[in-house]
Amino acid sequence: MDIGSIKRVLIGEPFPNSMEIHERLDKIRGLAIFASDPISSNAYATEAIMSILIVLGSGALSLTLPLALGIAGLVTIVIFSYVQIILHYPKGGGGYRVTKDNLGTFPALLVAGALLTDYILTVSVSVSAGVRAITSAFPQWHDYRVGMALGAIFLITLINLRGVRESGTVFALPTYAFVAGVLVVIVVGLVRYFGLFGAPPLEVTPHVVPPQHDIGGFLYTWLLLRAFAAGCTALTGIEAISDGVQSFKPPESINAAKTMVVMGVMAMSLFSGISFLATHLSLIPNEANSILSQMTEAVAGKGLLYYWVQGFTMLILVLAANTGFQDFPRLSSFLAQDGYMPRWMMNRGDRLVYSSGIVTLAVLASVVVVIFDADEFAMLPLYALGVMVSFTLSQVSMARLMGRVGRLKPGEKLQTLFTTVAYESGWRWKQVLGVLGSVTTFVVLIVLVATKFVDGAWMVVLAIPLLMRMFYAINRHYQDVAESLRTRDLIGSRLVQVADVVIVPIGDVHKGTLRALQYAKRLAKDVRAVCVITSDAAKERLMKRWNRFPELTGDVQLLCIEYDYRDVLAPVVEYIERVKEEEFPDDLVTVVIPEFVTPTLATQLLHNQSANVLRMRLRARPNIVVVDIPFHIYSRMKVDVSQKKEPAGEEENSASEADQ
Amino acid sequence: MDIGSIKRVLIGEPFPNSMEIHERLDKIRGLAIFASDPISSNAYATEAIMSILIVLGSGALSLTLPLALGIAGLVTIVIFSYVQIILHYPKGGGGYRVTKDNLGTFPALLVAGALLTDYILTVSVSVSAGVRAITSAFPQWHDYRVGMALGAIFLITLINLRGVRESGTVFALPTYAFVAGVLVVIVVGLVRYFGLFGAPPLEVTPHVVPPQHDIGGFLYTWLLLRAFAAGCTALTGIEAISDGVQSFKPPESINAAKTMVVMGVMAMSLFSGISFLATHLSLIPNEANSILSQMTEAVAGKGLLYYWVQGFTMLILVLAANTGFQDFPRLSSFLAQDGYMPRWMMNRGDRLVYSSGIVTLAVLASVVVVIFDADEFAMLPLYALGVMVSFTLSQVSMARLMGRVGRLKPGEKLQTLFTTVAYESGWRWKQVLGVLGSVTTFVVLIVLVATKFVDGAWMVVLAIPLLMRMFYAINRHYQDVAESLRTRDLIGSRLVQVADVVIVPIGDVHKGTLRALQYAKRLAKDVRAVCVITSDAAKERLMKRWNRFPELTGDVQLLCIEYDYRDVLAPVVEYIERVKEEEFPDDLVTVVIPEFVTPTLATQLLHNQSANVLRMRLRARPNIVVVDIPFHIYSRMKVDVSQKKEPAGEEENSASEADQ
Repeated sequence: MDIGSIKRVLIGEPFPNSMEIHERLDKIRGLAIFASDPISSNAYATEAIMSILIVLGSGALSLTLPLALGIAGLVTIVIFSYVQIILHYPKGGGGYRVTKDNLGTFPALLVAGALLTDYILTVSVSVSAGVRAITSAFPQWHDYRVGMALGAIFLITLINLRGVRESGTVFALPTYAFVAGVLVVIVVGLVRYFGLFGAPPLEVTPHVVPPQHDIGGFLYTWLLLRAFAAGCTALTGIEAISDGVQSFKPPESINAAKTMVVMGVMAMSLFSGISFLATHLSLIPNEANSILSQMTEAVAGKGLLYYWVQGFTMLILVLAANTGFQDFPRLSSFLAQDGYMPRWMMNRGDRLVYSSGIVTLAVLASVVVVIFDADEFAMLPLYALGVMVSFTLSQVSMARLMGRVGRLKPGEKLQTLFTTVAYESGWRWKQVLGVLGSVTTFVVLIVLVATKFVDGAWMVVLAIPLLMRMFYAINRHYQDVAESLRTRDLIGSRLVQVADVVIVPIGDVHKGTLRALQYAKRLAKDVRAVCVITSDAAKERLMKRWNRFPELTGDVQLLCIEYDYRDVLAPVVEYIERVKEEEFPDDLVTVVIPEFVTPTLATQLLHNQSANVLRMRLRARPNIVVVDIPFHIYSRMKVDVSQKKEPAGEEENSASEADQ
Repeated sequence: MDIGSIKRVLIGEPFPNSMEIHERLDKIRGLAIFASDPISSNAYATEAIMSILIVLGSGALSLTLPLALGIAGLVTIVIFSYVQIILHYPKGGGGYRVTKDNLGTFPALLVAGALLTDYILTVSVSVSAGVRAITSAFPQWHDYRVGMALGAIFLITLINLRGVRESGTVFALPTYAFVAGVLVVIVVGLVRYFGLFGAPPLEVTPHVVPPQHDIGGFLYTWLLLRAFAAGCTALTGIEAISDGVQSFKPPESINAAKTMVVMGVMAMSLFSGISFLATHLSLIPNEANSILSQMTEAVAGKGLLYYWVQGFTMLILVLAANTGFQDFPRLSSFLAQDGYMPRWMMNRGDRLVYSSGIVTLAVLASVVVVIFDADEFAMLPLYALGVMVSFTLSQVSMARLMGRVGRLKPGEKLQTLFTTVAYESGWRWKQVLGVLGSVTTFVVLIVLVATKFVDGAWMVVLAIPLLMRMFYAINRHYQDVAESLRTRDLIGSRLVQVADVVIVPIGDVHKGTLRALQYAKRLAKDVRAVCVITSDAAKERLMKRWNRFPELTGDVQLLCIEYDYRDVLAPVVEYIERVKEEEFPDDLVTVVIPEFVTPTLATQLLHNQSANVLRMRLRARPNIVVVDIPFHIYSRMKVDVSQKKEPAGEEENSASEADQ
């Protein structure tokens, strides 16, 4: 089974370009594929708030609900902003493009660097969290967690490489099953808590945990801020849909915006519901038993529902990685379009997804998993910073855009990146919301960086500028390329001329080198065979063989270079350089290299790689053209024995030593 | 600092070929470089015998000396045989060449496979044993033993790459210091044991260890055989000098033979002396304290001499690896000369040593060290088998040669591999010694395989035939090559002809592709540019640019292939194949590929590797010549800002998308 057919089995048959429109997502699949990260956040966001509040004692846990509602308010603002972004930037591109259009390249690349970092972390964090859920159930597998995490990344990569529609189908079940399960828990919980429909009331047994420290004043406010910031992990992944507008069925932006709103409503109902029940059931955060697990057990006992919620929690934690797999490749392709990432990031693969981006992300996330030993607690301080940078700058951008829209005269149009916008009557309050949202997310960003800097956030603070430097370096290179290739001022005669000379390095005279000489003689009148001689005997033997083929070697100049070291390519390269510099400084000089091609890689390794090495050495030198004349060696059935027993003549001996 | 200068620092300046004779070894260095393995065996050979005899109780330990003397006798016979080999095969080659000359290719390759396996093990076993000696002294380093072993291999590799004379100088001190130290211990021990010169007599405190089992009859004999076989590790490395005759100063074979005799006398004096004292001092083998250490302490106390012997034992155990580093590359080069190993194994490196063989051995031994976790006890069952195979077959070969010599008439000469031999009067007893020696080493081989098969010897029994299979496969390939390249029946016109057609795959029209077209037009009249088109807009744009350069594109046929998938190279390859098969089935077809060359590897990665991939795909197809037309992209200082601010024209846009 060759590589091609393995690929066919794993990825599937290639789609033609014209199928792109059939690969578009409906809203059901779109939600599943983009929203796995924000929805999965519900598995831990409430707990993140409570784990900080508990420092103030169990009494402070009652602050969970107000904080959660505050976060839900922030999410509403952010989602509103992103719906605006989707409608004004219908070609997709999210935070990067809206920032580029309104604030300029530098902040846009800051957003891009921040988001790419975060997407990598989304994958490694969620996969590691999923693996931890599994190894909690099966502690004997703990030693294999890195392998399991890498395996999970590999699987998600494969699913994504199979195409966006297909992965949408795969991800739909666990996503909706998780939402449904948790919703049932919340509804049953609420019904029982309020004693509706005569349901049996919930038993609430308040545990009292004393405050760990006597905290007041500034520190108290700081702790509340930290709790708020911790809960803001619920916001990660919200921006995903805005990058992927173009993967929705037409009308793309309307469908994407609707999906975004549904996602927001869904995520916030779960978040508020869980936070309400968690506080009203007096649950205490406990490392061994998550809040969601405690709540499910309290509401419905350890029955089917419990295992349903636990099972799909595990699954959706792993699948949250998919949000990264959606957005990293898309954002990379936008950057590549603008010349800030390698061009091949724009290429779509066999199944019309951005395969290079998917594979790049898989590799980078795997590296992070290996470095952090698949321990997501060690990675969490790095996480969610990037997305806050993006929220802040995107919302500032939208506020700025609204300001420009507000100044438009009736009938006037404003040119945005791929479309135009007209005056909007609601521009003022949209602008205010944008400012409000950006200030809030900026404060969250500061809190996150300040509290987690030493624990690892510094790595992100370091990585983002490095990424930006890379973007600029890539861009500079592409500018150089464009400058070098431009034909605007080209006149035919200004192209470099081809010199009437061909140099043929040879090791011996055999069919392969004779073929190269024959080819060289077609290219130029001045053909020079160059041979490195290490002993008189070798020279004599070569000359004898050379003179045997006058019709081929007749017009060819044979240059023997005597050399007392083993690196026989060095004098050849030196000669070629001398010819180029002294005789034809302005023209293209051609080198014809005879090369053996053997049937397999293994047999190829039995030969000196002289031809390849020579090509590599000449590569850096401009205006030298290398022509490979392949000579294919076939393995045949053995010659019959009588012939083999003949003593090897001069011919065979020398041919076998020829070895180019 | 580039790779070249790092290499200069580590390896030194390259030597010219003419310096080969200056790099030859005198006897002092020759002994040091080849004999480290057999001499280091004294550190454990006596103990190996005693560890088996102790099963029969401490009473049986008195058998150590007779067994040791038996082994010393065997060593004498073997050394005698090898001196004969050296004198009759003065070009070196040892067991492999003498067997090839007298018994044929198959047994010779068996010897070669066995010896190569053993040399690899010599390196991994001795390095691991040396590291164990160090970690016994510093147990806190135990976790780093694999790293330390690999580091030791790396160091020995470097020393060997620096040249044979230089490594001889490095190895001389520890080898002679070890020999001197142990000799002093033996002499002082004997003086004190016999109470000569009024020396204080040694205290002998006999420990009585009861027999572990009640053993008699066949089992008793079997145990004695096993003890004998175990002591035969003293024989490993003896053959080394016979491979390396040519590295001695002239007269090579005389010097090599003398060195061999001195080595034998030296090793056997140490071995007999240690065995004598060990039995007469009633020492008991003890895992924590080696026999040599116990003996040194008993003879001279824990003073300077004790630490001298311990320190140099540690060092010589590591340096024993060097015997492998001498012979593996030499034997490989002999095999390569005969076409049974890759040809490049014959190439000498900058310092005139067989660098490829040295590096290959280092890699293989490192792999063994990693697999066995640097535990030499786990590797020992694999060790010393190969060398017994070689001893057996070499001595049979010499016996056969002596038989042929004995049948020579006066004045008649017998042609051996590189020389001739005349009648020798002592042929009969030399033959008898050869038979005696080979029978003994064969019995030892059988005992070793039988007792250690399950513990790991099976791996060697498996590896040797696999190696032999590889030798034959390599040889078949070189025969194919010679057959393909032979010019004996070549008539000029029978070389393949060059078709008057050139195909130029292009992605866009820019300076790089125009240069390729210009070159192609020199090669043939029929030039065809091939372009894959994925949309009408792309086609229109291309045509427009194409028509802008009539003086270059005028005579060129432009073929646009419409294609609905992303793998744009596939239709290009298909077209080239069709042209080759349908239009020019018997001729060479030329493909000219325009290729970007960027200043660094990093920038090269920013481009599709289309040119490289296309070359790879065409490579397997015979009679297609690929011409790379490089276009060098230079990174320049930024163009001035005013120019940058201009809106990018059609030119720059398209050029930047050109990306071959």
